Amino acid sequence: MKINPYEVSGRLDYEKAVKDFGLSIIDEKLKKKMKKVPRLIKNNYFFAHRDFDKILEYHKKGKKFSIVSGRGPSENIHLGHIPLYIFVKELQEIFGCYVFIPFSDDEKFFAKDIDYKTVGKYSIENAKDILALGFDPKKTEIFIDSIHMKSDLYNIAVESAKKLTMSTVKAIYGFKNEQNIGLHFYPAMQAAHILYPTVKYNMPVVVPIGIDQDPHIRAARDVASKIKIKKPASLESRFLPSLTGDAKMGASEMGAIYLKDSPEIVKKKINNSFTGGKDTLKEQEEKGGSPEICPINDYFQILFETEEETKNRKKLCILGKRSCGACKVELIEKINKFLKDHKKKRDKVNIQKFVRD
Amino acid sequence: MKINPYEVSGRLDYEKAVKDFGLSIIDEKLKKKMKKVPRLIKNNYFFAHRDFDKILEYHKKGKKFSIVSGRGPSENIHLGHIPLYIFVKELQEIFGCYVFIPFSDDEKFFAKDIDYKTVGKYSIENAKDILALGFDPKKTEIFIDSIHMKSDLYNIAVESAKKLTMSTVKAIYGFKNEQNIGLHFYPAMQAAHILYPTVKYNMPVVVPIGIDQDPHIRAARDVASKIKIKKPASLESRFLPSLTGDAKMGASEMGAIYLKDSPEIVKKKINNSFTGGKDTLKEQEEKGGSPEICPINDYFQILFETEEETKNRKKLCILGKRSCGACKVELIEKINKFLKDHKKKRDKVNIQKFVRD
Repeated sequence: MKINPYEVSGRLDYEKAVKDFGLSIIDEKLKKKMKKVPRLIKNNYFFAHRDFDKILEYHKKGKKFSIVSGRGPSENIHLGHIPLYIFVKELQEIFGCYVFIPFSDDEKFFAKDIDYKTVGKYSIENAKDILALGFDPKKTEIFIDSIHMKSDLYNIAVESAKKLTMSTVKAIYGFKNEQNIGLHFYPAMQAAHILYPTVKYNMPVVVPIGIDQDPHIRAARDVASKIKIKKPASLESRFLPSLTGDAKMGASEMGAIYLKDSPEIVKKKINNSFTGGKDTLKEQEEKGGSPEICPINDYFQILFETEEETKNRKKLCILGKRSCGACKVELIEKINKFLKDHKKKRDKVNIQKFVRD
Repeated sequence: MKINPYEVSGRLDYEKAVKDFGLSIIDEKLKKKMKKVPRLIKNNYFFAHRDFDKILEYHKKGKKFSIVSGRGPSENIHLGHIPLYIFVKELQEIFGCYVFIPFSDDEKFFAKDIDYKTVGKYSIENAKDILALGFDPKKTEIFIDSIHMKSDLYNIAVESAKKLTMSTVKAIYGFKNEQNIGLHFYPAMQAAHILYPTVKYNMPVVVPIGIDQDPHIRAARDVASKIKIKKPASLESRFLPSLTGDAKMGASEMGAIYLKDSPEIVKKKINNSFTGGKDTLKEQEEKGGSPEICPINDYFQILFETEEETKNRKKLCILGKRSCGACKVELIEKINKFLKDHKKKRDKVNIQKFVRD
């Protein structure tokens, strides 16, 4: 098993990762402290945390906290990117949080063989896709590094950079001397993104992330304690798997469903998907399917369903009373409806409403 | 002999440095191409260059060039910092250049055990000291990294960073892994300062610098050719020596005259200065002095005199017809007048006039 910002592979053992990273499980006791439990915590997609209990105590006193949820822009957003922002939106609705969404086109440029202007354009397009999910413009701020850079943020990166030695970032990220100095500096800008609401608005921060991004949280927490501000908390998720059965949906031709995909392409991709079903309908009816390894199941569960709905569907599958075909037909319909609605909302997004001076 | 951005020591052999660094001497042929030769080139203080001949050819066609002359801010500006800006001002007058003055408080913070806010304040105070020399507000822009950071500049640093590997900056600057990542990234921001007028206004750049700063020029030229813009030219100077006889005036109690020094302190420091004179007045009259090793001579020459005036004073010294005492009395008067006038001008500086959006 490998889980780090640059690689997720192998058969994932989330419990081991929690232990290795020093995280806490989101347990019933913690859930009881929330005035409403977000759907993606109820169904265990977000399953681990650091210090979220402290954030809830702070919030109980009537104080505001904020969420930082950044994105390394890419040419096309796929469904694997969406649950995070569905979750952030629900947190904003439940807790009235301020949400800060930084776009690290600088990092993408440092890490990939790509033109800087091109990554800048991706940032704008990705921002539209995310904001189309319906964030409150009064409480949501986006920041594209290549467009909105200002002293407020740069200075936090400078303060953070002074607290991170080259040895430290090499140890955390495994950078090599043959790589460019931008990549080596980026952890400071990343920390600045995470610490921005705390430094600028004096609000504690929660960062919802895929568990593979945890090293960034550790680095930012280390910096926070050195510059004597509140350490950021985190809420950490599993992954939306690839349609091919890989642990994490990444950019790929057949494994990922892109927001731009036509209904026909969605249909084709899902019909070709790996599932937890048996080879024949007869066998499925006799022995039942294995929803725990089925990406189709995960899509229903993570993108659309309540806990109850998931439980019922899984039960029918295990009992052999539901075929993969039926699941696929339903999922195609649900995803195509989601994409159609999303496109409409996206066309109405004015990203300037989400930019602060 | 050691000449690099972090150390200047030993008996300086400027000719060897020119050869080692691959510079060209500012010769009579080049001087003839200037519509007026600046005082500090006439008296050989600025004595070497890279590509300044190309800049003059460009200017001859009626096109504008620009000067970048940055400063790593310090608590107090001393006289050793002034000749550079006297020179820049004269270049602006002769050639009508646009002048860009960046203040790298970020680098100072990375390199020293100092508070970031404090270095920011130094930047503002240093800017006033420099602008008091009388730059044209329409053609001069200051940029304090901690106050004025914006995408325009940050993005050039990002493009530069991508072209500089960690191996390269380690080789040029000798940074160690125990040092912070800010310091390792700074060469990219430095390159951005130098390349800013070329990227933003499409104007070729000349950087007037002390010869110890030449590695920065080499790095910026390397970046410029990689991002396919005009390589910056340079004009390189000797040093204003310390009053104690050291090769370069650095921050020190008795070796440097600060702009804030009172007339009494200036008098005391100069009276205590090392000179090229003999031990006794009698011996001086018999054998004559050695102006070539005398910091008092250099102060007259670099700060105040025309070539002719220097020649006359040196001649009298060598012939034993002028005592160190007489030189000191005159220099004290000249420096105190300069400082008094400078203070008046400084009080009237409005740095906002020099800041662009």
